[in-house]
Amino acid sequence: MSHRCRLPGWESKKMSAEQAATLIKDGMTIGTSGFTRAGEAKEVPLALAERAKKESLKITLLTGASLGNNVDASLTDAGALKRRMPFQVDRTLRKAINQGEVLFSDIHLSEVVEQARHGYLGHIDIAIIEATAITEEGAIIPTASVGNSASFARLADKVIIEVNDVWPEALEGLHDIYLPAMRPDRTPVEVTAADSRIGTPYIQVPPEKIAAIVLTHRPDSPSDNVPADEGTQRIADHLIDFFKNEIASGRLGEQLLPFQAGIGSMANAVLEGLGTAGFEGLTMYSEVLQDSAIKLLDNGTFRFASATSITLGQEVGNRFWPNIEQYKDRIVLRPQEISNLPEVIRRIGIIAINTALEFDIYGNVNSTHVCGTQMMNGIGGSGDFARNAHLSVFISKSVAKSGDISSIVPFVSHVDHSEHDVDILVTEHGLADLRGCAPRERALIIIEKCADPLYRPALLDYFHRACERGGHTPHLLNEALSWHQAVVESGSMRHFADSPAQS
Amino acid sequence: MSHRCRLPGWESKKMSAEQAATLIKDGMTIGTSGFTRAGEAKEVPLALAERAKKESLKITLLTGASLGNNVDASLTDAGALKRRMPFQVDRTLRKAINQGEVLFSDIHLSEVVEQARHGYLGHIDIAIIEATAITEEGAIIPTASVGNSASFARLADKVIIEVNDVWPEALEGLHDIYLPAMRPDRTPVEVTAADSRIGTPYIQVPPEKIAAIVLTHRPDSPSDNVPADEGTQRIADHLIDFFKNEIASGRLGEQLLPFQAGIGSMANAVLEGLGTAGFEGLTMYSEVLQDSAIKLLDNGTFRFASATSITLGQEVGNRFWPNIEQYKDRIVLRPQEISNLPEVIRRIGIIAINTALEFDIYGNVNSTHVCGTQMMNGIGGSGDFARNAHLSVFISKSVAKSGDISSIVPFVSHVDHSEHDVDILVTEHGLADLRGCAPRERALIIIEKCADPLYRPALLDYFHRACERGGHTPHLLNEALSWHQAVVESGSMRHFADSPAQS
Repeated sequence: MSHRCRLPGWESKKMSAEQAATLIKDGMTIGTSGFTRAGEAKEVPLALAERAKKESLKITLLTGASLGNNVDASLTDAGALKRRMPFQVDRTLRKAINQGEVLFSDIHLSEVVEQARHGYLGHIDIAIIEATAITEEGAIIPTASVGNSASFARLADKVIIEVNDVWPEALEGLHDIYLPAMRPDRTPVEVTAADSRIGTPYIQVPPEKIAAIVLTHRPDSPSDNVPADEGTQRIADHLIDFFKNEIASGRLGEQLLPFQAGIGSMANAVLEGLGTAGFEGLTMYSEVLQDSAIKLLDNGTFRFASATSITLGQEVGNRFWPNIEQYKDRIVLRPQEISNLPEVIRRIGIIAINTALEFDIYGNVNSTHVCGTQMMNGIGGSGDFARNAHLSVFISKSVAKSGDISSIVPFVSHVDHSEHDVDILVTEHGLADLRGCAPRERALIIIEKCADPLYRPALLDYFHRACERGGHTPHLLNEALSWHQAVVESGSMRHFADSPAQS
Repeated sequence: MSHRCRLPGWESKKMSAEQAATLIKDGMTIGTSGFTRAGEAKEVPLALAERAKKESLKITLLTGASLGNNVDASLTDAGALKRRMPFQVDRTLRKAINQGEVLFSDIHLSEVVEQARHGYLGHIDIAIIEATAITEEGAIIPTASVGNSASFARLADKVIIEVNDVWPEALEGLHDIYLPAMRPDRTPVEVTAADSRIGTPYIQVPPEKIAAIVLTHRPDSPSDNVPADEGTQRIADHLIDFFKNEIASGRLGEQLLPFQAGIGSMANAVLEGLGTAGFEGLTMYSEVLQDSAIKLLDNGTFRFASATSITLGQEVGNRFWPNIEQYKDRIVLRPQEISNLPEVIRRIGIIAINTALEFDIYGNVNSTHVCGTQMMNGIGGSGDFARNAHLSVFISKSVAKSGDISSIVPFVSHVDHSEHDVDILVTEHGLADLRGCAPRERALIIIEKCADPLYRPALLDYFHRACERGGHTPHLLNEALSWHQAVVESGSMRHFADSPAQS
């Protein structure tokens, strides 16, 4: 391991994951690497979960975003999580959050270290960071994600490094680590394009803070990408038509603008669909690169991609990681504070494509809460991008559960993105261009273009009856949430599809 | 007027407001100066309203923000407004918007020209801009606001200038005009502190685009500031205690951070209250300077204030404007795209204080819609600041209508600012510090600290019964909007105050 652990005397800090986990005490706040199940600290958190099975131990866990390798589930099952932030996608943890057993703080991903740095989230005791290598100076070469690792390493009293030799050493040079200065000395972040490099390829850590080095050999969990289907291809096709029309009208150039695409299968499939349109030389300035981004780099649709993590399915991963050297001049991984920074997003002008759980007839979007109460994953970076993007696009299938649930409702049960942050809505049925529209205009466009024909009459009926009551944003408050109440009670909104005239 | 109109040959463009108004044709999109009833184009729009009384004529009107001198009311009464954006505070216009007669697009104030520049809001035919003077090169020295004037002048086919000699000539040098370049050539906006100057003191206009120069003599409408009362002073006192505690704990320095304060009487009174705390040498980086800002500049609480407009009551205005020369090294007015720019707000770290119409037990804020449907003014810049601020504070009295309406409700009837964008909530009863908290924690803090004792039992009862149903954000969907429905039906929420156990 001497080429991976180049810090002189590193062996004195070498220990097992179990030994390293004993550094963590009950009540501590721990910050770990890991973003969209990529590059998370693995062995020490799992060893901690084992310890927590036997002794009473609860921590606050901060990460970049979601973790793989069942880390969240193991810690949850062991009762080791008091508080978790800022994002998760784990079934076991999600259940505990919704039962009120784990306190979950759902934070815009660009703001996590902004808040941590200023003491809003408590003092960070220990950072645990996965590394490809440790340099001669004790700096960390990250792995498949950067997330909040650089700030956690700076803020924590002690740093535990997991040096994972499943990662090719050629990852060195992939990352661009830059942290804003403390105020009032903060200066502009000089990213002016997706391919700007403004920092160092490593995370600086004072060697005396390195409390443990653990040698590991466990890969990331592969992502389970649902393949593109007719619905996602139709959504992509509507977007392609829209972009071509924007180019024809002069509102966008041939290179469009840098793309952001949200986490998950739907955004992945839609982005991949865009690759069929013949665009060339585009760029991506996003949080995460999924299979679609690599495929579009391969076929020339993208010429460069910037993100904070790379999360791939088995097949694409097997092709990508061993050949990382061939991609290194076309990819950069940044801290999530920079990948999601409002400053850069507004400056370079992002086309943001995020997934909605549901949206309402006025264009408000729910990204997180099923029926207003049950947390799915968290807001993630969607708010960083939607608020500041040049074009804020939300996509969704028009119905869920074989049509029992309409994704277009009179009034969303939870608002993550208000009408002010939503330019374009797309379902398999069509694309609603809401730019410049007043709410009453939005409603007619959304119902016509996006709603499933099954639910259009009831939505129109609601809208027209609400308009009789007046208002800039007409609503019938005693019916506004009745579609969701029906789901709570019966699991279905079919009732509204069947009898449009009365709800 | 030769010292105000220095462009050689300007007399050839001189005309009456009535003549200038004839340049405006039915269906045109017009962009005018004016922000929070400060520095609006006055005579030409009023002349247009007179014309529209006699002939069928409808325009789309874009401004900085709200207009004074009854311009919005006159245009509305004359039926001259088809569409209006991005903000208003006029009673007559508000009524027309809520009746669906005028289409109102409610847009984050930093994004208006971003959208206009890229053709989202239609082509701007004519800009009408109030000026203190016109330079030798035909550049415009603005008056009490900058708003979107610089971009409107650049985007419009023709520019009409109202040279208003009520403004002291000493305003020249007060403004700092900077417009971002078109992408992909856009570079960082180099504002690193409230007192940064990065542009020119005038708005450049190609002289051949100047279609009319109208000489005017009509002052801005003075603002009607409601004086501070016991409630606003208590809110200020809670904030003062909070800031002192933040300083004591090391989370803020003695200079705090630059302040933004929302438009209106409440924010004005609270900001003025902060002036009693003995803070010195603070700065302001805000949209608008109201009476409070001038008083705090006078007493040394503020050493510098940056904004896009100055809107004063009669008394403070009479003292301020004739003595503008004494303030010019401590005030700068910028385009609203820059005063509200996410990039700068995040970089310099703003303490944003905005007014909520209502907020819910989980910290979601409604700033705009009475009972979810009736537009008050618009989101304005509150979203630009709340999303990107270092500390996002919302203030409100705990009740309205002598206690008939609780400002703290189970579920807000409209979301302008989601829980993710709200750090601190304050009413006269107390301050809820929500940083890092999960929703179930937020609810208990908000109800205890902010709700009026009259409504606390019913809010707690709702919360506890909702928790029995589970969820990250517990709700009872069939009751969530019942407090507002009661107001729609009976004008009051008293029913919930009287019978907490059942709603």
